[in-house]
Amino acid sequence: MTVSVTTSTRERILLAASELFRRQGYAATGLKAILAASDAPYGSLYHFFPGGKEELGVAVLDAGGAVYRELVEQFFVPGGDVVRATRDFFEGAAVMIEDTGYADACPIATIALETASTSEPMRRASAIAFESWLDVLTDRFAEARIPRRRARELAVELFCAIEGAFLLSRATRSPEPVRIAGRAASDSVRQARDRALARGSTKRTS
Amino acid sequence: MTVSVTTSTRERILLAASELFRRQGYAATGLKAILAASDAPYGSLYHFFPGGKEELGVAVLDAGGAVYRELVEQFFVPGGDVVRATRDFFEGAAVMIEDTGYADACPIATIALETASTSEPMRRASAIAFESWLDVLTDRFAEARIPRRRARELAVELFCAIEGAFLLSRATRSPEPVRIAGRAASDSVRQARDRALARGSTKRTS
Repeated sequence: MTVSVTTSTRERILLAASELFRRQGYAATGLKAILAASDAPYGSLYHFFPGGKEELGVAVLDAGGAVYRELVEQFFVPGGDVVRATRDFFEGAAVMIEDTGYADACPIATIALETASTSEPMRRASAIAFESWLDVLTDRFAEARIPRRRARELAVELFCAIEGAFLLSRATRSPEPVRIAGRAASDSVRQARDRALARGSTKRTS
Repeated sequence: MTVSVTTSTRERILLAASELFRRQGYAATGLKAILAASDAPYGSLYHFFPGGKEELGVAVLDAGGAVYRELVEQFFVPGGDVVRATRDFFEGAAVMIEDTGYADACPIATIALETASTSEPMRRASAIAFESWLDVLTDRFAEARIPRRRARELAVELFCAIEGAFLLSRATRSPEPVRIAGRAASDSVRQARDRALARGSTKRTS
């Protein structure tokens, strides 16, 4: 296995930037703080990210989007119970947000809101990241025989519930919003799945 | 009627800061930009906000919280139809966000996320603002005979739905997430209200 030093410096910069952006925002985080946290030499940031902070921002959104998509995939596995997956996903989020002192929630929501109207490359990267999570959820819901159009709507509902809950939980320093949003999302998924199952058994018996 | 010049300068600073914070975030907005946008003399910012940018941030959160609470109150009037109010509120939000080029959504969500882990006075101000919206919604739902505990949960669900939808709508430049979240929220409110009405009529006939 070959791990080049340059790759690892790039990854340290990316990791430090992700962490700082998530906790304190994109604009509040200076390049100096990122370099200090990643223990990287001064010139390395522009070496790896010639476009500077905005290019680094896009890379953080891409990386954060991929990590969170993998997290969604860990809960929502093909052939799994989508109602239980929804419940477990929100419960996991509630525990995680409390454990991290209400600092670590969505890895990219803060940056996405900060830059949605000011950086088109970053807005696009946020949209692609979010859509990749919605795609996973939509596929799992559709596999549970929920019609594809409704499956996509459910995915959007679940996204809105968790992101809104993260905001309220961070502001109020309470995991309760995540738990309330989780119960509502689980109920929506259960209703949609039960309707789908009922439709399926009607078809089979008719 | 007496309108002092000093009051109006303070309000211009507050309005300019609110606008800039909402569109580009708290950290990205410098005091110079706020003074330029509010056409205020240099010393006036520290005259009105001796605590500097953080005190201005708290004032923006307080003011934004009050304005949005009034908006919620305009849709959710005492004695009104809570299902229709929910539908109209989300539809109004969908139209507004599209009309403003996906810039104007929640007046304080971006700042709240940016500062939740870095400024305790601003975190507290965000929490108070959000709770004031939840209080209005909880009262209206409780007046529709929904048990108070469930009314509070519904208020949280509605909050999460609109805030999460604003994030997704801004990133994807589409009003669709707000509409999808609105249908889901209206359905939840309808189910809760219908259960409450059914319980009420059972009690009356028993």
